Amino acid sequence: MGDSPENGNDLPEPPALDDSASRYCFSPIGTIHSPFREKFGIPRQPGLMPSAEARLELLPPYDRDEAIRGLEAFSHLWIVFVFHGIAREGWRPTVRPPRLGGNERIGVFASRSTHRPNPIGLSVVELAGIVREAGRLFLELSNVDLLEGTPVLDIKPYVTYADSIPDARSGFAPDAPPIWPVYFSAEAEQRCRNLAGQHPQLQHFIREMLQLDPRPSYQTTPGRRYGVRIFDLNVVWHFDGEAFWVDDIEPAQG
Amino acid sequence: MGDSPENGNDLPEPPALDDSASRYCFSPIGTIHSPFREKFGIPRQPGLMPSAEARLELLPPYDRDEAIRGLEAFSHLWIVFVFHGIAREGWRPTVRPPRLGGNERIGVFASRSTHRPNPIGLSVVELAGIVREAGRLFLELSNVDLLEGTPVLDIKPYVTYADSIPDARSGFAPDAPPIWPVYFSAEAEQRCRNLAGQHPQLQHFIREMLQLDPRPSYQTTPGRRYGVRIFDLNVVWHFDGEAFWVDDIEPAQG
Repeated sequence: MGDSPENGNDLPEPPALDDSASRYCFSPIGTIHSPFREKFGIPRQPGLMPSAEARLELLPPYDRDEAIRGLEAFSHLWIVFVFHGIAREGWRPTVRPPRLGGNERIGVFASRSTHRPNPIGLSVVELAGIVREAGRLFLELSNVDLLEGTPVLDIKPYVTYADSIPDARSGFAPDAPPIWPVYFSAEAEQRCRNLAGQHPQLQHFIREMLQLDPRPSYQTTPGRRYGVRIFDLNVVWHFDGEAFWVDDIEPAQG
Repeated sequence: MGDSPENGNDLPEPPALDDSASRYCFSPIGTIHSPFREKFGIPRQPGLMPSAEARLELLPPYDRDEAIRGLEAFSHLWIVFVFHGIAREGWRPTVRPPRLGGNERIGVFASRSTHRPNPIGLSVVELAGIVREAGRLFLELSNVDLLEGTPVLDIKPYVTYADSIPDARSGFAPDAPPIWPVYFSAEAEQRCRNLAGQHPQLQHFIREMLQLDPRPSYQTTPGRRYGVRIFDLNVVWHFDGEAFWVDDIEPAQG
């Protein structure tokens, strides 16, 4: 709070705030380019998958160097975004978090569920770099839980003295989720080698994704085969009761 | 991410998301009742003023016990809100943070300034209690930096393993701001005693507020007198170059 704006010129009008009708309307200031092409497979919180790298593209008129001046002095950022994939599905007063086995219901405001009255997401991510390419301005992020095409409403620096509360009491999710073993079939391992030119970290990425157990809690029959879309690929895998197995990696359809 | 919604009924429609026009519109789920009646005097981050207590009132149809079931297991919450006081003032690509003495400009996205392209605020607060009074549902909050009447868009639990990054590098604001001495005139001290029935913590509140130095960085001439509105009061004070002095406390006008 409490900063003094400079006087500027050639600036766009602020976004229309329709607060006469008790509605506040926002236009995205950026868009996410991410390897996660569907909600399935995305870590349930940020910070769990260091190899999950994404780019935040600043949209005009926000793609000015001056708007991010000094940002490189921060190691982490808050991304305030819209859960756009599910935005039209609505909300429910209670949800069943995967961390409670999918059986127990808690209030939507006691959860980080995507099915919220206002589908606004909040993620802390690592700032790995800032690049300009062909006139476009990108923030390089890692350790993300963000879907391809996510509309970004705001970027804020992570201010450790205010935002970091190591001894906060965190209800049903006191610790990071457990890590499972992940094995690759000979075919899947060969595919990773063949794709190393385009995706040098592919095997590592898939391991970090599956070891978090992305299965929906209502769908955990051992042996069941799943497909997850990442990059332009479909990763086929199953859980055998003790570990995750990557069966195959194929080009994604459609 | 990844929770399973329950099936509900008698629920309102989700808020209209006007994403065909690349605008996302949200209606408040709650309102803040706070002793801070103007932006001046509000701590520049939450977590700096334990005696700053506020209430978040859940608005219908969100004022259901089930929507906050389990919230009491969390000590801290994120409040996502609208900077409503300044909403129509617009944004500038750079700002001058008070922490840099008000001289140096940094990018708006490298700051927590209120003058943002989308005026969305983000504060972590302590959850002190949950009360229902005359049918209305309130979350009791402390350590806030929230203005009276703030429209709340979302409430999320603070999840320590994901949100707390004690070793994050925080640019120009690595530590909490310094603390100044605060003294009360005999008159001001007497006023605090007289007001103890309504405001038992008043002197403590004023001390915690002023010791953070709320002066705008462009307005720091020693001896200058300021008035700050808190509760239904106007607190008159000055800075003598070494300490803050509370001169008087009077009923607020208007």
